[in-house]
Amino acid sequence: MSLVRVHNFAISLDGFGTGEGQSADLHFGHAGDRLHQWMFATRWWSPGGSSGVDDAFVQRHEPGIGVEIMGAGKFGHPGWHEDPDWKGAWGPNPPFHTPVFVLTHHTRPSIEMEGGTTFHFIDASPAEALAAARAAAPGQDVRLGGGATMIREFLKAGLVDHMHVVVVPILLGRGVRLWDGLEGLEKDYKIETVLSPSGVTHVTFMRAARN
Amino acid sequence: MSLVRVHNFAISLDGFGTGEGQSADLHFGHAGDRLHQWMFATRWWSPGGSSGVDDAFVQRHEPGIGVEIMGAGKFGHPGWHEDPDWKGAWGPNPPFHTPVFVLTHHTRPSIEMEGGTTFHFIDASPAEALAAARAAAPGQDVRLGGGATMIREFLKAGLVDHMHVVVVPILLGRGVRLWDGLEGLEKDYKIETVLSPSGVTHVTFMRAARN
Repeated sequence: MSLVRVHNFAISLDGFGTGEGQSADLHFGHAGDRLHQWMFATRWWSPGGSSGVDDAFVQRHEPGIGVEIMGAGKFGHPGWHEDPDWKGAWGPNPPFHTPVFVLTHHTRPSIEMEGGTTFHFIDASPAEALAAARAAAPGQDVRLGGGATMIREFLKAGLVDHMHVVVVPILLGRGVRLWDGLEGLEKDYKIETVLSPSGVTHVTFMRAARN
Repeated sequence: MSLVRVHNFAISLDGFGTGEGQSADLHFGHAGDRLHQWMFATRWWSPGGSSGVDDAFVQRHEPGIGVEIMGAGKFGHPGWHEDPDWKGAWGPNPPFHTPVFVLTHHTRPSIEMEGGTTFHFIDASPAEALAAARAAAPGQDVRLGGGATMIREFLKAGLVDHMHVVVVPILLGRGVRLWDGLEGLEKDYKIETVLSPSGVTHVTFMRAARN
């Protein structure tokens, strides 16, 4: 069965998936790179990195995935839709290598990039976006790429099968919260927590079998 | 040196120290007892309980403590100050056995209980309350008993030396958040995270040495 998966989604101890003040230079606003230093320290990111639990988790984001859905805020900083040449911040060969559906109220023609990534722009509900993504990669899993707002909307719609959240022990104080309005989410999931020597905590949500 | 300590303060994964709708029957509102089941499962709470890491943490709340400061919301449900006979929900012999300073805008004469607990009622800033508490228990540590609002105010005032928070993997969705407005708190503390087999995560904040 095709699953909907979230991987490596980092939040602060106070629940923010991004800081305030996102811009072209600061993709995560005032959080800077503090939510992702654990990832940069893995072997997956750089050859001298660690090959422990952080690396094990980070590497799971790709196998089995045939398509990604991302929010407009991941595709670019606020205002990107006013730039007709904007193709994301990943350069000519983005690291997705699959179709990518960008959720936006400002749709535009699809953009084919090098390396197998094609960006499609849709103004759609979570369920509609998921149907489009599954049609583009039959039988394969769908990754939800973030940010916090779109993941929260998919959670509220009951559409997430697997979610891996990384809690980083910092307090951002402001930004976009992942958890708002998700009371009782634990009832639908088996939750497993694993601590890494790096100081981050990996929290995995696995959907209980559907009736 | 006399330290200011927080012990066993439980929050949900989304950061709530209590749920919504606190009343005489529901001290933690719609959270019920879900934030504290880990504690009830310890040997400290009941003879058949576990004697592992949860028990080790929970037992630290008493040694060295000479006085507690608590918020009005811990002393009673909303409206307790309108009941002249209200003496807390702990019965004639409360489990404190020390002076307890209750922060409230509705002060009343001190109440001496059995077993060494005396409730004092003060309308004071965190620094003022701390001075009063230290005067009542010279040289001994001060415990901050919660709830979330008063702990947050003491953190903002830079008055907390040691804080033990227990993250319970549930999402309450509403209530009183511990973390609001505490951006950068990690800069003043060494933070250690320990996972319990019970599923809760113990996060300890230890103040870095003062200059």
